Amino acid sequence: MTKPLRVALAGLGTVGGGVIRLIGANGALIARRAGRPIEIVAISARDRAKDRGVDISRFEWVDDTNALAHHEDADVVVELVGGSDGPALALARATLANGKSLVTANKAMLAHHGLELARAAEAAKVALKFEAAVAGGIPVIKGLREGAAANEIARVYGILNGTCNFILTKMEEEGRDFAEVLAEAQALGFAEADPSFDIDGVDAAHKLSILASLAFGTRPAFADVATDGIRHLLAADIAEAAALGYRIRLLGIAEDNAGGLFQRVHPHLVPTSHPLAHVTGATNAVVAEGNFVGRLLFQGAGAGDGPTASAVVADLIDIARGEFGPAYAMPVDALATPTPADTGERRGRAYVRFTVADKVGVLAEIAAAMRDAGVSIESLMQRGAMADGTVLVAIVTHEGPERSVAQALEKLRGSQSLAGQPMWMHILA
Amino acid sequence: MTKPLRVALAGLGTVGGGVIRLIGANGALIARRAGRPIEIVAISARDRAKDRGVDISRFEWVDDTNALAHHEDADVVVELVGGSDGPALALARATLANGKSLVTANKAMLAHHGLELARAAEAAKVALKFEAAVAGGIPVIKGLREGAAANEIARVYGILNGTCNFILTKMEEEGRDFAEVLAEAQALGFAEADPSFDIDGVDAAHKLSILASLAFGTRPAFADVATDGIRHLLAADIAEAAALGYRIRLLGIAEDNAGGLFQRVHPHLVPTSHPLAHVTGATNAVVAEGNFVGRLLFQGAGAGDGPTASAVVADLIDIARGEFGPAYAMPVDALATPTPADTGERRGRAYVRFTVADKVGVLAEIAAAMRDAGVSIESLMQRGAMADGTVLVAIVTHEGPERSVAQALEKLRGSQSLAGQPMWMHILA
Repeated sequence: MTKPLRVALAGLGTVGGGVIRLIGANGALIARRAGRPIEIVAISARDRAKDRGVDISRFEWVDDTNALAHHEDADVVVELVGGSDGPALALARATLANGKSLVTANKAMLAHHGLELARAAEAAKVALKFEAAVAGGIPVIKGLREGAAANEIARVYGILNGTCNFILTKMEEEGRDFAEVLAEAQALGFAEADPSFDIDGVDAAHKLSILASLAFGTRPAFADVATDGIRHLLAADIAEAAALGYRIRLLGIAEDNAGGLFQRVHPHLVPTSHPLAHVTGATNAVVAEGNFVGRLLFQGAGAGDGPTASAVVADLIDIARGEFGPAYAMPVDALATPTPADTGERRGRAYVRFTVADKVGVLAEIAAAMRDAGVSIESLMQRGAMADGTVLVAIVTHEGPERSVAQALEKLRGSQSLAGQPMWMHILA
Repeated sequence: MTKPLRVALAGLGTVGGGVIRLIGANGALIARRAGRPIEIVAISARDRAKDRGVDISRFEWVDDTNALAHHEDADVVVELVGGSDGPALALARATLANGKSLVTANKAMLAHHGLELARAAEAAKVALKFEAAVAGGIPVIKGLREGAAANEIARVYGILNGTCNFILTKMEEEGRDFAEVLAEAQALGFAEADPSFDIDGVDAAHKLSILASLAFGTRPAFADVATDGIRHLLAADIAEAAALGYRIRLLGIAEDNAGGLFQRVHPHLVPTSHPLAHVTGATNAVVAEGNFVGRLLFQGAGAGDGPTASAVVADLIDIARGEFGPAYAMPVDALATPTPADTGERRGRAYVRFTVADKVGVLAEIAAAMRDAGVSIESLMQRGAMADGTVLVAIVTHEGPERSVAQALEKLRGSQSLAGQPMWMHILA
């Protein structure tokens, strides 16, 4: 057996602990599969004394995390520090500049600085790998970069945030409202104390920008992802959707739209006949639609120490085997600069829910706004009064350009009849 | 851009035509992704004149398929001839012996000769790749070999034969019997004129032996796969299963059973809460359960020219990139020789359906046989008489060793009360 792949591990949170446990438990099997052992030679984190439920005394401790980039015994640095900039970015830059490979689970850093890092890895002829950055343990980076590589991809989309899917399926199963379920998820540790990165769709947008780059051969364009979350969803929306044959999922979608790149994270109505409608709890799932392979689905645990560590170590195995290449499937200079698609031209069906005052003329006002904007209504449901006396009106539109719906909503903005913002969701086709 | 990867293509059936079309349609994109073009330089098949709906005039035609192995312009041979031995095997051996890489979709050849070919590829330091041999376009070989490589796999299982799943879901949706649906599938071209490889589970067994090798680091052991098909399934079985909350799927399952390797292809009752219960039509799906990643699901088109060509070309892209290694994830000498598991000791719940004469004492005879073998009955349903006057008795057992069920059935063998063989299915846990 040849010499081990030597790993310096930065960050000992949940995932870092998982990586240590995984290599401890499966080390012999990994050595057989990789053709050489994978060994952790040094570790670093903020607090050495913290009890992580894993023995770290056998590893060399390095106080200055950034020093791992210069550690003479390390071939690879695993960055699990987190954060788009700051220490994580400094470590990543220094690691690649020093000619060491980098494995990271840091989607925020990749969304903002992935291209720079990929260029640095290319210059140094080392690996930059990030399977764990998207959809936890699911090998979807590999699935797009390699498994579906023969295909022109029309669309890649999926459930990319386990916290949101946990909340949505809990709301669905128990008929409860968002705020209540979020509080419970926070108490259980499924949601962060500051949950906005998850529930406002930012985390999913980070991941989507990575998937889009791989799927379309374009530079990551996180700034172009139109992002919305699940904060304003009512239990009543889920009930209406169910009555219509849909479940609500927060989807990240990237598609080639008439030569433009469309990227959006938004709650969607998913038909119950679609596999994503059956993805419940913290599970993630990604669909890629290729012009020869058709629809591919990858599903599994989207977070957690075990699954995420599995993805990190899969990257290390690729590196140990010498089976790696450009981070974004092709050299940075071969990546196209994407033109954002004109969302207004995008056609689809939509669900729009209004919370309105219970008085004469409200329906007529909404219907007139829709008509004036050229929105054709497929169905309209009005349910009895809520506890606060307001009434819900839920509309499903026929297929049409998104611009028309936006115009109708613009027209209704500030109307005395509306109590709060309308909820606009897209229907997955 | 560096020099192209030059491909010699043997076999121009559905998949061969798909490979030509795919490279024609997506060639520029593939060149960007692979870092170099992939070019077909020579082709061979039995009949040059046959209309394949694809222009083959621009490729060099070689009459003697075996000569592709010696073609001086080819770096890789793609073998799509088919058949476990004969011309396909001769070509595969000659290709590797000549120091060229081999890509094949031939599960039968791999099931019987995969180890020999892997050894030859290792000796020649070339690639042997076979993504298209299992589950069509789904990158499940890569998923196991690389994506889940950090995990000890407890179990790998799935829907590996699209023809059977097409027939089963058709029976399910339309309440029709097997023979009738098979005839229709044959008329539509979804099933072969001689369908036994598909419907008796042999094709799935070929594929399972490949998955098991990758999952468990063992030599392929096709001869140890216990194989049964769907030929004896009745519409009534599907109805009974549905009433109990299950759907029937032909599953290939490989698991580590107390250090022994268990491999079986058999119709199973799959709980409707399990994602495989929702896989319909010719779709394939594979589940791998890892000790860190948990349950991974890969789903997509299991056959057809486009999806299978997608997998073939994905292999070519890996080769063009230089991102490949041992065919079975580790060198042949590192693969363990598996010990077949003692199936009798395997515990589970079972469904057993008897077709019995409508007379006094039959139930008592069945119940006594079960009792004497120590089989504990969870539920028993007897439905009214069939058209031929026989009666169906369907039993679901509590969890217990498979040996007990086998003993009970042995005891009942030749009983005057039974009309035909009992149908024994396992319940997926």
